[in-house]
Amino acid sequence: MSKYAAPLKDMRFALYDVLGVEALFARLPGGDSATRDLVDAVLDEAARFTGQVLAPLNQTGDQEGCHFEAGQVRTPKGFKEAYAQFAEGGWNALTAPEAYGGQHMPETVGAVVKEMIDSANLSWGNYPLLSHGATEALKQHGEEWQREVFLAPIIAGRWTGTMCLTEPHCGTDLGLLKTKAEPAADGTFRVTGTKIFITAGEHDFTDNIVHLVLARLPDAPPGTKGISLFIVPKFKVARDGTQGERNSLACGSIEHKMGIKASATCVMNFDGAEGYLIGQPNKGLTAMFTMMNTARIAVGYQGLGLIERAYQNALAYARDRLQMRALSGPKAPQKPADPLIVHPDIRRMLLTQKAFAEGGRVLGYYAATLVDVIERSADPAERQRADELLGFITPIVKAMLTEAAQECTYNALQVFGGHGYIAEWGMEQLARDARITTIYEGTTQIQALDLLGRKILQLQGAGLRHFVEEISAFCHAQQANGEVVEFIKPLAELTQEWIGLTQEIGKKAMTEPEEMGAAAVDYLFYAGYITLAYFWARSVAAADASSHPDDFKQAKRHTARFYYSRILPRTRAHLTAIRAGADSLMAMPDALFG
Amino acid sequence: MSKYAAPLKDMRFALYDVLGVEALFARLPGGDSATRDLVDAVLDEAARFTGQVLAPLNQTGDQEGCHFEAGQVRTPKGFKEAYAQFAEGGWNALTAPEAYGGQHMPETVGAVVKEMIDSANLSWGNYPLLSHGATEALKQHGEEWQREVFLAPIIAGRWTGTMCLTEPHCGTDLGLLKTKAEPAADGTFRVTGTKIFITAGEHDFTDNIVHLVLARLPDAPPGTKGISLFIVPKFKVARDGTQGERNSLACGSIEHKMGIKASATCVMNFDGAEGYLIGQPNKGLTAMFTMMNTARIAVGYQGLGLIERAYQNALAYARDRLQMRALSGPKAPQKPADPLIVHPDIRRMLLTQKAFAEGGRVLGYYAATLVDVIERSADPAERQRADELLGFITPIVKAMLTEAAQECTYNALQVFGGHGYIAEWGMEQLARDARITTIYEGTTQIQALDLLGRKILQLQGAGLRHFVEEISAFCHAQQANGEVVEFIKPLAELTQEWIGLTQEIGKKAMTEPEEMGAAAVDYLFYAGYITLAYFWARSVAAADASSHPDDFKQAKRHTARFYYSRILPRTRAHLTAIRAGADSLMAMPDALFG
Repeated sequence: MSKYAAPLKDMRFALYDVLGVEALFARLPGGDSATRDLVDAVLDEAARFTGQVLAPLNQTGDQEGCHFEAGQVRTPKGFKEAYAQFAEGGWNALTAPEAYGGQHMPETVGAVVKEMIDSANLSWGNYPLLSHGATEALKQHGEEWQREVFLAPIIAGRWTGTMCLTEPHCGTDLGLLKTKAEPAADGTFRVTGTKIFITAGEHDFTDNIVHLVLARLPDAPPGTKGISLFIVPKFKVARDGTQGERNSLACGSIEHKMGIKASATCVMNFDGAEGYLIGQPNKGLTAMFTMMNTARIAVGYQGLGLIERAYQNALAYARDRLQMRALSGPKAPQKPADPLIVHPDIRRMLLTQKAFAEGGRVLGYYAATLVDVIERSADPAERQRADELLGFITPIVKAMLTEAAQECTYNALQVFGGHGYIAEWGMEQLARDARITTIYEGTTQIQALDLLGRKILQLQGAGLRHFVEEISAFCHAQQANGEVVEFIKPLAELTQEWIGLTQEIGKKAMTEPEEMGAAAVDYLFYAGYITLAYFWARSVAAADASSHPDDFKQAKRHTARFYYSRILPRTRAHLTAIRAGADSLMAMPDALFG
Repeated sequence: MSKYAAPLKDMRFALYDVLGVEALFARLPGGDSATRDLVDAVLDEAARFTGQVLAPLNQTGDQEGCHFEAGQVRTPKGFKEAYAQFAEGGWNALTAPEAYGGQHMPETVGAVVKEMIDSANLSWGNYPLLSHGATEALKQHGEEWQREVFLAPIIAGRWTGTMCLTEPHCGTDLGLLKTKAEPAADGTFRVTGTKIFITAGEHDFTDNIVHLVLARLPDAPPGTKGISLFIVPKFKVARDGTQGERNSLACGSIEHKMGIKASATCVMNFDGAEGYLIGQPNKGLTAMFTMMNTARIAVGYQGLGLIERAYQNALAYARDRLQMRALSGPKAPQKPADPLIVHPDIRRMLLTQKAFAEGGRVLGYYAATLVDVIERSADPAERQRADELLGFITPIVKAMLTEAAQECTYNALQVFGGHGYIAEWGMEQLARDARITTIYEGTTQIQALDLLGRKILQLQGAGLRHFVEEISAFCHAQQANGEVVEFIKPLAELTQEWIGLTQEIGKKAMTEPEEMGAAAVDYLFYAGYITLAYFWARSVAAADASSHPDDFKQAKRHTARFYYSRILPRTRAHLTAIRAGADSLMAMPDALFG
């Protein structure tokens, strides 16, 4: 069975030493209550809960899966009880607004807890995940009575939320959706249609489930401009908050999936179900994107969580398993063979995981600090900058951490050899669970189009500009720091190259729109690797400036060197691929593909 | 459900146009009976059998899996009957020696059939696969009576074979194995020990199963120099061929695996089981490597087969599924959205699969032509050259095609989006099945050490030298061919760089052995990408010189251009990673990994 213990030391390093959240929280309005002592206590307790309650249910949950019968979903043994403990512990309320019973802790603290949950039990984590998205959408777009009626029970954990977007014929292309909403005389709406791939659409955790459903009003314009968002609860809820009879909606079936088997993925049939409109008619996509952006970062944390768990187990196995002698002579001569960790390529696979786990952690938490600034800063200019940066970094967080999760779970399984392929050790589950993360909440392809097409080319790259300025300021400040300077030169050069490459693509895309699409995924990886290089350089600088012991500093430095010398060169391949241009993909007539 | 139809046109193109097997077979002793008409008829029939009999059992086999009860393995519904048809059709005998009932067709023809089997049903293909390896080992190392007694029933398909190497504490490091063989007074041996991960160790296809078991004789020297090979049948077999009572061996359990669920992976317990020694005492590894090399190439074909099937289905889906409009304006204005195939990154993922499927096919079959030359050529110099080339190319075939299978099944699943992740469409099975191929019969890491450490540095790179000469001769011959010249220059330059890089590593490894291990996996990819670039250039030249229609030639050219501009640049990243040297992996003390 694969094991998990929260990497509290590295989490705190990322928070306090690299990202300086202690000072950040202290200066943000309402953040000063999140003292280091309190945050540490929260993380200790989260480590205990995720390690002792959630982690042991990960493999059994995978083996048992969810069961569906007569419209009901039965989650695996122990899942419901773990959720009850979670709700009772107030974890659902951690970052939620105080007005509705929340503790209003910074989102950055929530991000760390989220990483732990996803390491411990990704499938289980999907049930409360969507409640967080629903909370955000209601917070920002709901009417006051809607917030009062729906937020409190969700935040208390008595109800959960869902996002109902996808239909059988459309996932990425929401403009095609057909679900209808007819206004009723009492101001409610009757929602009719079929939604698929609805995570936690039905389960046995709570009394009620609040579906946030995209649908079309009668006479809505076609495409994405005619989509509205509705609250459609499983059991009807009156405007005074009283829960009523069962609504006209039901789970029709659950999917049999490659992984996240303990997470119920539902077909939801709405048959004139009663719902309320959220926000303005035909503006549903805006509200949905509030949830979606939150969910995209959250899926990035899923990737991070899987990388961490994969690494912990691969490292333990590499230290324990004896196989072959080191090329340079026995390292454990008293034993029948040397441990796997002596072999160079085993180390390459371990260091790849370590580099993505620790570098990815800083990247992931960095995004969360931006959310805190946006939500709390009193300075509009600071809020705007953070918002532009967050828009820019979100597709990188989502796509890089989930793509890295593919590579790292591959590597971890490979370290185990044949034992990685059998269920017993739990490594193959990590690979299966990871596989959904590059798909849901927008595929890597969609993230790439969002980054290059929307965030950079359409929005004139404000977020990229801020980010490059930040890197340049860091390089400038560190250029005389002998402990870091080996990373500063390549980082500064790559950053310059990045700006030039972006202009190059922008210019080509002005006359030939396919150039953007042809570059997008390679560009995303290119940008992602440089982004991680920046956070690795910052990590080395932060470690050096910290009071951590020398061993810790050395480990950061060696891992950064590994990253710079063996991972970062991938930018060369992506650069060349980008420069090959659209012709390399578009010139072949469709008929010739096969 | 995922579909499969053998790509006969491209298979024939690889065989006849690129590799010129018609002329090759005609000039090899005993090969002239393999006329083009006969080969075509065999391939047509194999396409029918694999498409109609095996392919429909792929998904049902995965869902049902193997069942184990009281020492018996029950294979999924239809598997046993399909095997009976296979044996009756003489497929087991296709390439086997005539003296024991075989048809002695060239191994190259067997390779094409193998690709079809693996595309159609990888799990099922594992049952006859090991018989092929056992046939090779008996052919080359068995005594005449052993060949007579064991080969005929295996070739007729009445018995199957296994390879029993791995033990719980050792897979890669066979020097650690503990299974014992005690000589008995009658010249037989009593084998005792536990073997794990034994593919087809027990099943319900045949009356008897012939285990080839590695074990130690009493007083054998420690390590790999004290290993002998034994034939240990499930039911005892006398020297006159009569089948006797049940032997003292049993399947203890089967593994629950990520994929190839319909392939029985067995724990085999030998408890004083009666067996015969094959070949010389303590020379078992040599005999085992005969099977192993055959099996490694065969696993390469498994990778190829999965790539082909993944591509066929991803392409069909990309043509059918409507989602979003093309960036350059609607391509199917009469439909509600454009098909996926209009989107650049969908094309990138499809072209990646196409490039690996078709380029990999030529690479795979090329290796098989070498086997035919080794087995049949009357010219010792030609045989030696082919043998050295085969030794060199085997780890590339095994590792590149199986690693490419990871990437291609990833891409195919990604094209399907959420539908790829659910069992219904069959795409996630391909990814799960693919995952074992970089592990069994030697991990990618072992292939890399075999290529760089053994085949190149230890054996003074004879195979590499032949291969580079072959590429150079091709480049020289084609340099004035305007249809191919765009590929010749980069290919020739990369080949020169490859030689230089090899010398560079060799020099460093002379003083620091870890340099070899630190370079090996990146070197394998580097070499593999150049190898495929060579076969792509040959494919374009062959298409151009052929009577295929223009569309076919254009498709080859566009795919080659895609490969050269968007895949081959990965050599830049591998080159830089190699040059980072051993320090980047070895400098960090073990204790600092986490």
